[in-house]
Amino acid sequence: MAKELTSRAENYSQWYNDLVLKADLAENSAVRGCMVIKPYGYAIWEKMQAILDKMFKDTGHYNAYFPLFIPKSFFSKEASHVEGFAKECAVVTHYRLKNDPNGKGVIVDSDAKLEEELIVRPTSETIIWHTYKGWIQSYRDLPILCNQWANVVRWEMRTRLFLRTAEFLWQEGHTAHATSDEAIEETRKMLDVYAEFAEKTMAMPVLKGVKTPNERFAGAIDTYCIEALMQDGKALQAGTSHFLGQNFAKAFDVTFTNKEGKSDYVWASSWGVSTRLMGALIMSHSDDNGLVLPPALAPNQVVIIPIYKKDEELALIKSKALELKEELNKLNISVKIDDRDTHKPGWKFAEYELKGVPVRIAIGPRDLENQTVEISRRDTLEKFSLPQEGLATKVKSLLDDIQQNIYNKAFNHRKENTRTADSYDEFKTILDEKGGFILAHWDGTAETEEAIKNETKATIRCIPLDQKTEIGNCIYSGKESKGRVIFARSY
Amino acid sequence: MAKELTSRAENYSQWYNDLVLKADLAENSAVRGCMVIKPYGYAIWEKMQAILDKMFKDTGHYNAYFPLFIPKSFFSKEASHVEGFAKECAVVTHYRLKNDPNGKGVIVDSDAKLEEELIVRPTSETIIWHTYKGWIQSYRDLPILCNQWANVVRWEMRTRLFLRTAEFLWQEGHTAHATSDEAIEETRKMLDVYAEFAEKTMAMPVLKGVKTPNERFAGAIDTYCIEALMQDGKALQAGTSHFLGQNFAKAFDVTFTNKEGKSDYVWASSWGVSTRLMGALIMSHSDDNGLVLPPALAPNQVVIIPIYKKDEELALIKSKALELKEELNKLNISVKIDDRDTHKPGWKFAEYELKGVPVRIAIGPRDLENQTVEISRRDTLEKFSLPQEGLATKVKSLLDDIQQNIYNKAFNHRKENTRTADSYDEFKTILDEKGGFILAHWDGTAETEEAIKNETKATIRCIPLDQKTEIGNCIYSGKESKGRVIFARSY
Repeated sequence: MAKELTSRAENYSQWYNDLVLKADLAENSAVRGCMVIKPYGYAIWEKMQAILDKMFKDTGHYNAYFPLFIPKSFFSKEASHVEGFAKECAVVTHYRLKNDPNGKGVIVDSDAKLEEELIVRPTSETIIWHTYKGWIQSYRDLPILCNQWANVVRWEMRTRLFLRTAEFLWQEGHTAHATSDEAIEETRKMLDVYAEFAEKTMAMPVLKGVKTPNERFAGAIDTYCIEALMQDGKALQAGTSHFLGQNFAKAFDVTFTNKEGKSDYVWASSWGVSTRLMGALIMSHSDDNGLVLPPALAPNQVVIIPIYKKDEELALIKSKALELKEELNKLNISVKIDDRDTHKPGWKFAEYELKGVPVRIAIGPRDLENQTVEISRRDTLEKFSLPQEGLATKVKSLLDDIQQNIYNKAFNHRKENTRTADSYDEFKTILDEKGGFILAHWDGTAETEEAIKNETKATIRCIPLDQKTEIGNCIYSGKESKGRVIFARSY
Repeated sequence: MAKELTSRAENYSQWYNDLVLKADLAENSAVRGCMVIKPYGYAIWEKMQAILDKMFKDTGHYNAYFPLFIPKSFFSKEASHVEGFAKECAVVTHYRLKNDPNGKGVIVDSDAKLEEELIVRPTSETIIWHTYKGWIQSYRDLPILCNQWANVVRWEMRTRLFLRTAEFLWQEGHTAHATSDEAIEETRKMLDVYAEFAEKTMAMPVLKGVKTPNERFAGAIDTYCIEALMQDGKALQAGTSHFLGQNFAKAFDVTFTNKEGKSDYVWASSWGVSTRLMGALIMSHSDDNGLVLPPALAPNQVVIIPIYKKDEELALIKSKALELKEELNKLNISVKIDDRDTHKPGWKFAEYELKGVPVRIAIGPRDLENQTVEISRRDTLEKFSLPQEGLATKVKSLLDDIQQNIYNKAFNHRKENTRTADSYDEFKTILDEKGGFILAHWDGTAETEEAIKNETKATIRCIPLDQKTEIGNCIYSGKESKGRVIFARSY
């Protein structure tokens, strides 16, 4: 078969790249580090967007749009932000090209140099807080609960489709509040929204936690995150929600008059998820045959493939297929009928396995006779026959079952690959032999965290929100610790 | 009232700017020519997007995403495209900043210069056709019916909110076909989609036509357009659909094997509408009191305002309001209840007039007694009382009526402001005294078109698709003409 994938066991990283390309999700473009998201990949991203957008709106948020470009000077206004973001970025210096006087083509017109360079946004806190200054005078103007769907650019040196690209698509929420408590509540609320989306829609279990100071967003007081475990035992940060305190309000002088008539700086949160979720989705569930998509995100939840030899057979099968499609559509199940005569059934079976369609229905002449269909579920690859009578309801519950089964499988994988380590040796052995999440004691210092990272490439993924109080000793320094944190190697 | 607008009669251009700012649609940003689309404005744009996106999908299209950046050399590949687009654009020359050794802040790191400059896309034909080369081998790979929702940048010198901004949001469809006929059919089909959207959703009548060679998209064989007439008698190009022939396929060497086994270049169309439609919408219907929104695009179709003196009254009125809201929601009517005690009813009335909410419902103690409500429709500013019994159905037909009435009003305005001119003097008199569309004979030469434009600032908006054959003489040169074209001054 032309589209065979490298197996996960052989080379996990190659398997991932093969899959992204061969399932028509995305490809590299002519611009270093920038990807083309192909129609099939984009259809999955659109489903993610629609569901997230509804969750944001149901929690009181609304969308807006802020400029792509940020004046260079804005980055210097928040001291730690500039360190984190202004360095590796795309810089616009000119606004015109002209014909090359020495030949063909065009060259940059040196007369058209910008007075101040513009940065292509790597994230929008600065331009948005500059804007909020004009929107906020009094506590009556608060809260502001804005979200933006946008493209951003970070000049990454090593890129991988979806996981780390120079340009990526994301949403960034930027909220403004009258009190610290309210901003923290918002930060936590959005973390919960992300976790619910990851678990219910993506069927991907996540740990909720808070980042160590080292791993915080540049400019945040606290960074909350959801962390998922991929099949190869590496962690992936799937979403972050930041409590920004008054840092950006101070940097951009955004004050308000509170109910008591006193002036104070505004409190902030920001939160985002990106097309990186596509990478997380792929690596959570897929197998050596291709994508495995949770029904909640599959562009086609069901594909119907007619099996026939004679044209008369096709006509009858097709009419039955259309009838079934209509019944399934009534239950809000999306269906594709593939009756192309340019490809054989075997080719189609492999193709839809590769594309991760959750349920495949094959109908042949014998099925017509017996009033049955042949069902194949993508997650378990099981095949079985079902009567045509009442099929739609059964397919609906099958889809629910698949959604749940995919989640359970990922949950069990994480459970089996979450271990405790009580010494540095044990820690390193687990890391090298098994990977996964490791719960271990840490003394709370940046030095220890840094040393462990340098020696093992493992980082503290988060301090779990449900951390149990447990007195112990740091695996590295032996100093006292009050609870375990989550270590892992990560994407 | 604090939010009073300049009247249209006093200064139409100022009225427009006032309205965009005061109705919270958009504002200028810290970056020259780039706007912030505020939540209320974005909510209208989102409705446009959702409806257009469905229309695209219903006609077989799907979305994808291509890079923001385009290598400079790509622009030189299609000779006329480079003239039209590569000149006024944002150029990325560097990919890193560094701390300024001489002081605070950051400067561009001269060591991080790109080998080839990147252009922030002004339109994506070049990068997309470069990509399509990898997607197309045979007629079996065709058609490709891709659309992209994206931001683009054109370095305009004079900008106006929504109408002409350096960065704007749009969709760009890029299709690939096996035959010229099919590509032309697609080009015309999408023009029809745009016209239907403009008329049915935006309640804005449009003329369908084809541009003169002078006004064609850079790289197109033919540019089709929809043209609308604003209240001040100026035309606005609201959408374009281009038949690109094989120009981009040749520039990027995209060939395919046809059914006969022969190699040929691929045929193309591209088509787009942008946030400029927001400007068109505002200028088509709004009045000196503020926005007038067609119900199909209003974020809130109905606002309910309680009128009360005592808190007990509010409680009763609010419970009635919630009841009505629920009934209206069942008919898919969006409703906002504004029971804020920080603002008086009069202030709220003016506010929702300014924001263009199609139907306002006021409920006071006497309404409770009489089981009525007071209705005010935004388009005509009429007020009348309606019984609460069966209100939802009546509001639904009222909304339909408003949608139709807004369209009719705009249609009549255009009808009254479409005139024929048979001499150049008559033409200039109409233009200066009345404006509007002028149907006049033209000799078909670029020279005449250019001369008229230079002398009067009027351009040929289009050669109407329903042009009648009528022998006459060019108003400028006196040469023979076979039909009238549409002239106007324009945005």
